[in-house]
Amino acid sequence: MFEPVRVGLIGAGRIGSYHAESLALRIPQARLVAVADPAPGAAEKLAGAYGARPHTDVRSMLEARDVDAVVIASTARSHPELVVAAAAAGKPVFCEKPMAFTLADADRAIEAARVAGVPLQVGFNRRFAAGFAEARDVVAGGGVGTVQLLRSLTRDPGLANPGGVPPWTIFRETLIHDFDALLWFAGEARPVEVFALADALVAPEFKADGLLDTSIVTIRFDSGAMATAEASFSAAYGYDVRAEVFGSAGMVTAGEPAVGSMRHYSAAGLTRRTVRGDTALFGAAYTAELAHFADCARTGATPAVTGHDARAALAVAAACVVSVQEGRPVRLAEVEAA
Amino acid sequence: MFEPVRVGLIGAGRIGSYHAESLALRIPQARLVAVADPAPGAAEKLAGAYGARPHTDVRSMLEARDVDAVVIASTARSHPELVVAAAAAGKPVFCEKPMAFTLADADRAIEAARVAGVPLQVGFNRRFAAGFAEARDVVAGGGVGTVQLLRSLTRDPGLANPGGVPPWTIFRETLIHDFDALLWFAGEARPVEVFALADALVAPEFKADGLLDTSIVTIRFDSGAMATAEASFSAAYGYDVRAEVFGSAGMVTAGEPAVGSMRHYSAAGLTRRTVRGDTALFGAAYTAELAHFADCARTGATPAVTGHDARAALAVAAACVVSVQEGRPVRLAEVEAA
Amino acid sequence: MFEPVRVGLIGAGRIGSYHAESLALRIPQARLVAVADPAPGAAEKLAGAYGARPHTDVRSMLEARDVDAVVIASTARSHPELVVAAAAAGKPVFCEKPMAFTLADADRAIEAARVAGVPLQVGFNRRFAAGFAEARDVVAGGGVGTVQLLRSLTRDPGLANPGGVPPWTIFRETLIHDFDALLWFAGEARPVEVFALADALVAPEFKADGLLDTSIVTIRFDSGAMATAEASFSAAYGYDVRAEVFGSAGMVTAGEPAVGSMRHYSAAGLTRRTVRGDTALFGAAYTAELAHFADCARTGATPAVTGHDARAALAVAAACVVSVQEGRPVRLAEVEAA
Amino acid sequence: MFEPVRVGLIGAGRIGSYHAESLALRIPQARLVAVADPAPGAAEKLAGAYGARPHTDVRSMLEARDVDAVVIASTARSHPELVVAAAAAGKPVFCEKPMAFTLADADRAIEAARVAGVPLQVGFNRRFAAGFAEARDVVAGGGVGTVQLLRSLTRDPGLANPGGVPPWTIFRETLIHDFDALLWFAGEARPVEVFALADALVAPEFKADGLLDTSIVTIRFDSGAMATAEASFSAAYGYDVRAEVFGSAGMVTAGEPAVGSMRHYSAAGLTRRTVRGDTALFGAAYTAELAHFADCARTGATPAVTGHDARAALAVAAACVVSVQEGRPVRLAEVEAA
Repeated sequence: MFEPVRVGLIGAGRIGSYHAESLALRIPQARLVAVADPAPGAAEKLAGAYGARPHTDVRSMLEARDVDAVVIASTARSHPELVVAAAAAGKPVFCEKPMAFTLADADRAIEAARVAGVPLQVGFNRRFAAGFAEARDVVAGGGVGTVQLLRSLTRDPGLANPGGVPPWTIFRETLIHDFDALLWFAGEARPVEVFALADALVAPEFKADGLLDTSIVTIRFDSGAMATAEASFSAAYGYDVRAEVFGSAGMVTAGEPAVGSMRHYSAAGLTRRTVRGDTALFGAAYTAELAHFADCARTGATPAVTGHDARAALAVAAACVVSVQEGRPVRLAEVEAA
Repeated sequence: MFEPVRVGLIGAGRIGSYHAESLALRIPQARLVAVADPAPGAAEKLAGAYGARPHTDVRSMLEARDVDAVVIASTARSHPELVVAAAAAGKPVFCEKPMAFTLADADRAIEAARVAGVPLQVGFNRRFAAGFAEARDVVAGGGVGTVQLLRSLTRDPGLANPGGVPPWTIFRETLIHDFDALLWFAGEARPVEVFALADALVAPEFKADGLLDTSIVTIRFDSGAMATAEASFSAAYGYDVRAEVFGSAGMVTAGEPAVGSMRHYSAAGLTRRTVRGDTALFGAAYTAELAHFADCARTGATPAVTGHDARAALAVAAACVVSVQEGRPVRLAEVEAA
Repeated sequence: MFEPVRVGLIGAGRIGSYHAESLALRIPQARLVAVADPAPGAAEKLAGAYGARPHTDVRSMLEARDVDAVVIASTARSHPELVVAAAAAGKPVFCEKPMAFTLADADRAIEAARVAGVPLQVGFNRRFAAGFAEARDVVAGGGVGTVQLLRSLTRDPGLANPGGVPPWTIFRETLIHDFDALLWFAGEARPVEVFALADALVAPEFKADGLLDTSIVTIRFDSGAMATAEASFSAAYGYDVRAEVFGSAGMVTAGEPAVGSMRHYSAAGLTRRTVRGDTALFGAAYTAELAHFADCARTGATPAVTGHDARAALAVAAACVVSVQEGRPVRLAEVEAA
Repeated sequence: MFEPVRVGLIGAGRIGSYHAESLALRIPQARLVAVADPAPGAAEKLAGAYGARPHTDVRSMLEARDVDAVVIASTARSHPELVVAAAAAGKPVFCEKPMAFTLADADRAIEAARVAGVPLQVGFNRRFAAGFAEARDVVAGGGVGTVQLLRSLTRDPGLANPGGVPPWTIFRETLIHDFDALLWFAGEARPVEVFALADALVAPEFKADGLLDTSIVTIRFDSGAMATAEASFSAAYGYDVRAEVFGSAGMVTAGEPAVGSMRHYSAAGLTRRTVRGDTALFGAAYTAELAHFADCARTGATPAVTGHDARAALAVAAACVVSVQEGRPVRLAEVEAA
């Protein structure tokens, strides 16, 4: 039996707290030893709940001898710099999505991990969700033949505070999951062009602040395959994440908003429950991705989803931003050249 | 192209009216030429709607030269006598279930058809319902292996007039469908013993009149297979008929109360419609059984479901009556010897 | 009781034959009296099967005194001219989709019916399919709130003869159904811009002939709502037509490729059947739309789906053609101005 | 924050090992401190995996000062004696089902816990499975009205070693779960009579050893409600546990053999995965029942499922044994009087 990987967590917000609980309680091969967050008291509170050490100075945690690996769950803007710093400290890194907001930043993060020789994993949790992984296995095994049409969508139960959301969030923080899923399902095929529509249909009053809450994106691949990605920031029925892959031999789907085996039949017809939050849908996937990271951190293996995947999804998101700004299809080559 | 079979219908009640419409409009190989019903005006009204000839005297219709075949949809009590009369007139007979209330009457009906050399089909419509027929095909093709456990159930949307229902209706008119379905799925296996529970849970005030509205029956077959049949006369969510066959290689199910492809997701979860009436569930089966009868009447072929099937299901029902009366398991051999 | 509407059918091909059977056998309020088809023997064969009169000259049938109404199921190219001729003869017209290939032709057909004062119905059968109609009722009743995202798709089991298919068929004959469905679900909202991708992924060898077999279209509405329409000419698992409407209060879906109540559980998991052909999926809808037409022809009522709906869907298709030709989003106003 | 409950586990077999892992890793409010098993090396191995202390002498573990509570997962025959011993040592007890094989033993165990004033919980895990608990909530909330018909079933993927199974296992170790579920769903209603069929259909060669592998039981309640329970020791498609409760206002179901959101559509139709083992189906329930036990052990609260529930289900099982032996319905009063 090997020793658990000692993990330092950066970021004590919502997803950080969930990861802390997973690292402390749900993943035998990991141990939460430290939590860093610059907000006064935040690290203390979260670290204290699990007997870990708090840091308000992130750098001190990165340099700590008893921290074998780092999980980054801080605000998105800080991600690339922290990946670089963690890599420079020789620590394997798990970085929540998005890893970066620009391709240049993504490249720096990837290069830092490469130079340091540390595993760099990105938080595209759908890859670790059972239904999605099974669907991917069917596709990879030829079960749908040559992939021709793909779809991925994300609908959140609702924005608590639309005012705090940075511009282009729908592409860079939400649809980035769908872009990764589509690229993952598409296999060797590379995206060549995107066309994006986005608007503020849920909260029109925040449109002036740049908050777009509803979007449809089409992606054309070099194989000829075509994909759509859809997002909404407000689904009345819960948390809805689905994928569909259609090809010459069939179709596979993953995700469904109805959940659980209970069915109630009454004068009103049949009623079932729907998924109400991301941890209900992806709790097991959040755990599985960190368990995988702990394994990679221990063995040095390349994670199943890396900085390169983060960069590929980001390139699609970047092209979407241009597409919305200019109202036209945008080639991926354009954003690479930018 | 052959001439349509000219059909005379006996009984202008609810199911008779549905059969009239099917014969007149939905089945090219049949034509409704006459309707007989002793109730004043009933035959006139129904026959008139489809350009057929009304009879108040059933005998006159049975003897009519232009009636090639007879469909019996009159009150249950009249069935065996009418089968005998129709057969004596040399007419192929379709008889609604139950064909008889006693094994002796069933034997007389079967013998009459045999002597006359006419096809005798019984209205076990589930055999013609797509989901049930597909399930039977899977079972007959070995898809569940050796049959070990079976289940069949019937739940009606509700009794309009419990007062008018004769005693033992739940076994002889409702569960008779389930008994036939179970025997059909069981293939060569023969029922050897039944145990029945029945009570007035829906309308306790009619229990004194002998109306039992809720029942569970277990049946043991000579193969070792075991079955349950369930019925209720009042399902709040609609019309629910299902079957389940389990064996050494798997399981097949047929029937489901939720219906249609529409799904509504809202803050209340997922909602679907349920089946609300027997014609919504079995309309196509009612048509298909009569189309099959018309074919058999024309060609002289033995129907897929005959008087022998009616008798076999009736024997189970008869054993159920004794089982409830005496509170014990009853062997089929007992009712045969009675 | 009223007399059945006497219908003359133009076109004895696949869908014409299905409509002939419906008119002759499945729709009490209609009667098939004549069939016209210029192909030698075609009208004779189809008319003969149902005791109707054959015409090789369509004009003679349009002028026949015993023809109360006309159903056009001939090749698409002939539709507008035949609508005009039937209207000129004072006959109510049911025209299979597409009613026209150009907006000018569509306008001519609509105007002819208007001047003649005859009902003009178009064969958008999905509106008469139970699951779709129930979904529309939910949307119209506010069950999904303000519509924000829509999806419609069509996947055929496979092209028998790709060589015979005219260019732009995927937009003008297949996706036209999806465009109509999306406009129907969108209610008052009007489409303002489309962006279309289309390619020959199923049969690349026919791309040079202009046959595109796979497509994704996005549509932006004046309400801000966004839609996607998808089509493929070759689905290995059968015939797949679905719709999804998402809004501020929920989602409704219609259509599902799995069909029937039979479920088979074995060592291979759960297996269900899928829909294998259009009549299996839409047979009842084909009947219902003609029954509706017969009612409108008798009473003079405006059909639930008219030439205006055909034109609106055609405008979207026309914009798609330009979008593919020029690789850019195309405003509906552009094709109106063309 | 409170200290975790320190748990001693008795039994290092299959379910014991699963519970050990749950206590050590999945339940924050519990800690696995000791494992006892008389088999040479068994306790060492399991305890070692989680840093717990092994005991080959169960009594020494029961007396250990650092053991706050005891989980009994040893062979069924040892259960009542161990419950008594643990209670005598003042330790809260979780006992795997069946708590006893005789009503007298069950009474002794219940009395010991009562006298010692310790919580006694029994391992009826279905009560902690989400779908079942939600269904129970619907029933308890009146969602099906007055309960009239119930069903519960258990089908295992297959007997690894039929030779080692004690007689009446199907009632006392398998269907005991279904009996508890039915009594739970039935609420205040008490079972008054059972009728049981049981046979060796899966492995007839072991029938002489008393191994019955297939059974159907009917239960009549004092409310008039009727129930069936079904079991098979060999389901080709996996692990199938379901419940159905029908009443005057509707129906609720829980459990389904198909699992996961992945759906594969191909020329073979739709295929889904099925549940393949008990931990796949009930892993979360196994964890939840132990978490509940840890809470009760800490606070002294009465568990949601107690020795009384174990006894009530056992009484039904005991009546089933007599029913099969004597081929007749057996009143619960008879086994109470025995």
